[in-house]
Amino acid sequence: MQATTDATDPTYDGQNAFARILRGELPSIRVYEDDATIAIMDIMPQADGHVLVIPREAAAEIFALSEESAAACIRTTKRVAAAVKAAMQAPGVMIAQFNGSAAGQTVPHVHFHIVPRHADIPLKPHAGIPADTTRLRELADRIIAALPAIGA
Amino acid sequence: MQATTDATDPTYDGQNAFARILRGELPSIRVYEDDATIAIMDIMPQADGHVLVIPREAAAEIFALSEESAAACIRTTKRVAAAVKAAMQAPGVMIAQFNGSAAGQTVPHVHFHIVPRHADIPLKPHAGIPADTTRLRELADRIIAALPAIGA
Repeated sequence: MQATTDATDPTYDGQNAFARILRGELPSIRVYEDDATIAIMDIMPQADGHVLVIPREAAAEIFALSEESAAACIRTTKRVAAAVKAAMQAPGVMIAQFNGSAAGQTVPHVHFHIVPRHADIPLKPHAGIPADTTRLRELADRIIAALPAIGA
Repeated sequence: MQATTDATDPTYDGQNAFARILRGELPSIRVYEDDATIAIMDIMPQADGHVLVIPREAAAEIFALSEESAAACIRTTKRVAAAVKAAMQAPGVMIAQFNGSAAGQTVPHVHFHIVPRHADIPLKPHAGIPADTTRLRELADRIIAALPAIGA
């Protein structure tokens, strides 16, 4: 299975954290992967069960992403979001994708946030507080267990 | 061109505002449309140039949307977001899609928000203040003019 594809975006920084995760140079807690995408636990979650969907294609922003890769991202996002909703018993799920630091993007490789929402639990700040790894692993296991039930 | 496709989601409310816009029963300011999606100006924008991408397929949340329709949504979102970025000279663009009232969804038909971001301009509240129609039309014209340049 490929790690990343070559960047067609000349401004792409191949040393960003998600490029390094895709190459296996940095650890991550994966809940799903296929030929075009990976889904990992956000290590500074805005809520328990916050997952990131990342294309293998090297693109900083959605504008540089191929249509094929964008379609793969939304397919994975839809599937994993259903598992997150089930695993976290969340009445709501927010999906968000930020382009540019002015929009809140902190890692310059395209990623889709999946954030389970409960009406009475406010979101924690974006890219704010690091989570306990044992807790993330436990949440990831619950999400992984919910994936087969939703056909992913 | 079809208005909406039949709902496969038994909980779908065919009288929601976007279903009525898709059927032409309510007005909207469109910036783009194709066989699977429409893109319209948000009438309670969080920022100037806030656009909504709406699938023709009848689905309240992304979980009920077909993979084909989800792919069409992200293709349109990517194209229109590029036009919004260019038209609004926005350094950032936020893309967001809310599922369930607990996540901030206010109309029960899937929609993707495209919100141009400038670091020094805070977002207005979601579904907050109605915009002036003349101003929306002017912004829509700028976005429509930017579409050919990005190949949409």
